[in-house]
Amino acid sequence: MQTIYLITTGGTIEKVYQEQTGSVTNLDTKIGQYLSQLRLPGLSVKTVHTMNKDSLEMTDADRESVLRVVEQKLKRPAPVVITHGTDTLVETGLLLKNRLKGLKFPIVLTGAMTPLGFEKSDGLQNLTESLLAARLLPPGVYLVIHSQVFPIDRVRKDRKHSRFVWTTAPATDEETKAATARP
Amino acid sequence: MQTIYLITTGGTIEKVYQEQTGSVTNLDTKIGQYLSQLRLPGLSVKTVHTMNKDSLEMTDADRESVLRVVEQKLKRPAPVVITHGTDTLVETGLLLKNRLKGLKFPIVLTGAMTPLGFEKSDGLQNLTESLLAARLLPPGVYLVIHSQVFPIDRVRKDRKHSRFVWTTAPATDEETKAATARP
Amino acid sequence: MQTIYLITTGGTIEKVYQEQTGSVTNLDTKIGQYLSQLRLPGLSVKTVHTMNKDSLEMTDADRESVLRVVEQKLKRPAPVVITHGTDTLVETGLLLKNRLKGLKFPIVLTGAMTPLGFEKSDGLQNLTESLLAARLLPPGVYLVIHSQVFPIDRVRKDRKHSRFVWTTAPATDEETKAATARP
Amino acid sequence: MQTIYLITTGGTIEKVYQEQTGSVTNLDTKIGQYLSQLRLPGLSVKTVHTMNKDSLEMTDADRESVLRVVEQKLKRPAPVVITHGTDTLVETGLLLKNRLKGLKFPIVLTGAMTPLGFEKSDGLQNLTESLLAARLLPPGVYLVIHSQVFPIDRVRKDRKHSRFVWTTAPATDEETKAATARP
Repeated sequence: MQTIYLITTGGTIEKVYQEQTGSVTNLDTKIGQYLSQLRLPGLSVKTVHTMNKDSLEMTDADRESVLRVVEQKLKRPAPVVITHGTDTLVETGLLLKNRLKGLKFPIVLTGAMTPLGFEKSDGLQNLTESLLAARLLPPGVYLVIHSQVFPIDRVRKDRKHSRFVWTTAPATDEETKAATARP
Repeated sequence: MQTIYLITTGGTIEKVYQEQTGSVTNLDTKIGQYLSQLRLPGLSVKTVHTMNKDSLEMTDADRESVLRVVEQKLKRPAPVVITHGTDTLVETGLLLKNRLKGLKFPIVLTGAMTPLGFEKSDGLQNLTESLLAARLLPPGVYLVIHSQVFPIDRVRKDRKHSRFVWTTAPATDEETKAATARP
Repeated sequence: MQTIYLITTGGTIEKVYQEQTGSVTNLDTKIGQYLSQLRLPGLSVKTVHTMNKDSLEMTDADRESVLRVVEQKLKRPAPVVITHGTDTLVETGLLLKNRLKGLKFPIVLTGAMTPLGFEKSDGLQNLTESLLAARLLPPGVYLVIHSQVFPIDRVRKDRKHSRFVWTTAPATDEETKAATARP
Repeated sequence: MQTIYLITTGGTIEKVYQEQTGSVTNLDTKIGQYLSQLRLPGLSVKTVHTMNKDSLEMTDADRESVLRVVEQKLKRPAPVVITHGTDTLVETGLLLKNRLKGLKFPIVLTGAMTPLGFEKSDGLQNLTESLLAARLLPPGVYLVIHSQVFPIDRVRKDRKHSRFVWTTAPATDEETKAATARP
């Protein structure tokens, strides 16, 4: 039985529609309900809810607390998936990359452009991809979304087109090779 | 823009409910309709429908024709995903493995236990995973299903539990390493 | 709080896909799971599971047992909805019409052409309509399906087109008037 | 072939999630896409899009324009369904009731607490119910929602509980009898 840590922080992927206000907000975690729609034999997903915030509202202290949770979990090393708002996901990912040394497994950040369970949502796709990527990628910190894998220091959000894009031509280091080219 | 070839052969993943007979059969391809629910920026999925058969009804000639389609496509090398009935998926995969030499990209076979669009279906999960795996795995022939990656010569169907399992303890060759262990 | 009795007998509406056999069969009731997707404030739906059969396999004894359940429930009169296979739904409905006298509320039979939860299913539509019709129609026995209301002695299944049709031009009696035209 | 006029005005039922802003707004009509999920043999739904507004932003002039569309359509009398924001639905309905005389068919207003296509949405339920109610109710102006039928002058929104409730004990006039009582 393989273990994956799934750390939730909020973000669009977990937003819900509130009938009283007609707005979409981060209330309670809903990852578990959608995770249970996936078939994951031989996999033990250990979920940790750290906070439930729009990532534009995350503070430095919030990012530090995510880092501490990851550090704490990695005392028993296993792949990590982190669900996060897309607006500052890269910022949190870079913090993890810079502060965590000697990773034995990948850390995969993901999120969604439209909340889980809303028409045209990309949430379940991204969650599905992240769980698989966390088992296939070499150690490192990545964004996995829309069938793409980006080393966390090679990616930025293209807000206008609701997607992520490479910041520069893919480099040649180890993580980038894993994420991209073959022959 | 990266290319992936998606070759469909039928199987449970594409079965539909027929109202006149109350049975579930392979009629027309429906992969395209579900594929369009995924966000795949920067990816060009070129779909080829070869046949639409329950894999228990596939003949040797059918498998040869799948092989020929793959060979023909690989004249312009790119990752390949093949949707296939689960009952003889391994058989077709082994044929591909034995007959295709010098692969430059992975060939990923997948399928489903319950048809796409039926309650509790694993079809979209497996399709999502296969498209990502086809971009991440090294050259070789694999089954990708239920967040698992199996080299095609290491797997068998456990029909009773509607899943696939390792035939032996994972070996140490190149494909198996890609599919499994890190530290 | 208004009461409605919901009596289930099986039929396509409750069929499930069986992975081991690849067939669609009546196993356990699943109405409750879909009923819970509807908002029914002020309504108490009392569900009674009588059997879970393809209606082609229902015997005279089965129909008698449905009749007895209805009779028993109507000791405390309230509207009744019966979910039933469409192939012999009319037969059961006619038995109820002929044997139940002095109805104070309507009895609405319904079913589905495709099981609840399958792509393109009409099950939830028909269930939704039947619960409303049971509150609006005058006493009598009806089929409610596909936004149509038929007195049970005016309808037959058109199997080829997966729908129900009038057996004759709508008559002028009380039930037919309720089910059809105004000015 | 029976005709129903379906007049859309916007409201929560037609709201969409906007990825760039993370808000839920009235952009384009989406009724047609969901209407096509229903089976409506023998029914011709003629859809008229009048506006696409949150009903809190509807002006007196907007309500007059809805009235004019209804008047214009009723030159060829048929049942009418109007989709509308729930916050001022009753206000528009009362205008229609007061200004339209000699109705030959019912006018059914409906809406939703959560947009069509969002998890836990009541939109398709309400649309399904309204189309049926429009064929069953006597002439008059009604709200149909959550398996309930209210004469438009007997109902108010209970915003806190996301539902509608009777304003007073049901009266004894013709519309109220149609909406409620049996023995």
